[in-house]
Amino acid sequence: MNSKTPAQLIPHSPVPLYTQLKELLRAQILDGVFAPHTRMSSESELGEAYGVSRITVRQALGDLQKEGLIFKIHGKGTFVAKPKAVQNVSTLQGLSEAMSASGHEVLNRMLSQRFVPAGRLVAERLGVEESSTVCEIKRVRLINREPVSLEVTYLSQALGERLQKADLVTRDIFLILENDCGVPLGHADLAIDAILADAELAKALQVSVDAPIMRIERLTHAADGTPLDFEFLYYRGDAFQYRLRVDR
Amino acid sequence: MNSKTPAQLIPHSPVPLYTQLKELLRAQILDGVFAPHTRMSSESELGEAYGVSRITVRQALGDLQKEGLIFKIHGKGTFVAKPKAVQNVSTLQGLSEAMSASGHEVLNRMLSQRFVPAGRLVAERLGVEESSTVCEIKRVRLINREPVSLEVTYLSQALGERLQKADLVTRDIFLILENDCGVPLGHADLAIDAILADAELAKALQVSVDAPIMRIERLTHAADGTPLDFEFLYYRGDAFQYRLRVDR
Repeated sequence: MNSKTPAQLIPHSPVPLYTQLKELLRAQILDGVFAPHTRMSSESELGEAYGVSRITVRQALGDLQKEGLIFKIHGKGTFVAKPKAVQNVSTLQGLSEAMSASGHEVLNRMLSQRFVPAGRLVAERLGVEESSTVCEIKRVRLINREPVSLEVTYLSQALGERLQKADLVTRDIFLILENDCGVPLGHADLAIDAILADAELAKALQVSVDAPIMRIERLTHAADGTPLDFEFLYYRGDAFQYRLRVDR
Repeated sequence: MNSKTPAQLIPHSPVPLYTQLKELLRAQILDGVFAPHTRMSSESELGEAYGVSRITVRQALGDLQKEGLIFKIHGKGTFVAKPKAVQNVSTLQGLSEAMSASGHEVLNRMLSQRFVPAGRLVAERLGVEESSTVCEIKRVRLINREPVSLEVTYLSQALGERLQKADLVTRDIFLILENDCGVPLGHADLAIDAILADAELAKALQVSVDAPIMRIERLTHAADGTPLDFEFLYYRGDAFQYRLRVDR
C-alpha cells in the first residue's frame, strides 16, 4: 500500500463525494499505487477507509469501470486493468510495426479471407465498380496474446490473390504490400468515432456486448495516390489508445 | 422509397441473415435512401419485406443502433440518425473554428469556471506544482443547438483570470488565447480512446448512461513549446467523428 498519509475526502464540498473518491482512486491507479491485475480493496473496506457509504463507493467504482481503469470479476472482486496499448498515428504504420518499437509482440488470428462482391461504400472507396469482386480479410490482432482489435480489410481482387500466400498471422498487410508486392504506400485518410460492441465484435475481442469500441475507417493510398487498402479497425476501448501530434 | 428493385437477402449464405439485412440497411442509410429523422418501417414490415423473422430484424436494427446510425423512441418507432458532425484534426483548430467552415453553428453552455488545486495528472501536464491553483472550465459544446461534447479545460491561474471576462459562450478558447491574450499556439498532443458515458457525461450530453463516448486528452502548447491548455474532450459517439490524414 501507499506509504503516504491516506488522502481525505472533503465532506462539505460542492464536488460530490463519489466524484472525489473516483478522482482519488483514478490518480492512485494512474500513479501505479495499484499494479495492473491487483485486486482492489472491497467496497466495504473502501467505504470504511474513506468514511463513505457503500453506495458512494459503488458509484465511484462504476465510473472507473466505464473508463476502463478497473474491471470486475463476478464473485472475485474488482481488479486494476492493464495500461492501454498506445499507438502513435502521427505517421502511417501497421500495428505490428508501431508496437514492436515499444517491445510489444503482435500476432494475428485469421478469421477469414474471402472474395466478395464490393458493397457500395467499399466500391466507392477503392474506386471499383459496385458488386465487382474484392478481397475481404478479417483478422483479430493480439498484443502480447490479448485481442485488441478486429481488422476488416478490403483490397482489389489482384492484390488479394497475391496476399493468399502471404503470412497474415505475423505480418502487417502494409509491409506485405510494400515489400512483397512492391507497392510503396502514400497517405491514409482516417475517420475515428466510438460505438458499442455488437455480437460479432464482442466475440472477436472477448468483451461484453455493448462494451466501448473505438472505430477507425482507414483508406490507405499508394504513393501515386491510387486507393489501395480500405479497412475498418475496431479497437477495444479498454485496451487501446491512439496518440497523435498536430500543429497549429 | 427507393425506386430500384428491392435488394434480396441470400437464404443459404455463410453470412447470417441479420448481418445481410444490417449491411443492406446500413448502405441504404449511408446512401441517403432514408433521410435523417425519417421513421423507418416497423420490425414486422421489414420482416415481411425481406422475408425474415422479427428476431432477425431486431438483431439487425440493434446493431445499427450500436453504430449510431439509427435511434429508437419508445412507443414511436425507429428513426434514422443525423449524419455525424465531422472535424478534421490534421491541423490544430478549435471546434468553432473547424465547424464554421462547414456552415455549422457552435455555441457553448457554461457549466462552471472554478479555481481548483491541480491533481497530479493536470499538474504534470501543465508543468505546475501538484495542488497549486489552476483554472478549470467545463463547457458543453453544441453544434446546431445539439450537445456534442463536454470539454473540461485546465489552464494556469494567470490565464484563467484573464479568461474570466472572455466570451466563453460563443468563442473557442484557442482564439481567445491567441487574439485576446496574445499567446500564439504551437502543437498539441492528443490521445484518443473510447469509454462509456457515466452519469455526469450522460446528463451533460443528453445521452443514456453507458452510451459510447470518444474521449480525447489534448495538451496544447504555446508556439515556444510551453504547455498551455490541458483538456479532456468527451464527444458523443453517435454525433461526432474525427478525421485526419497521415503520411507514410
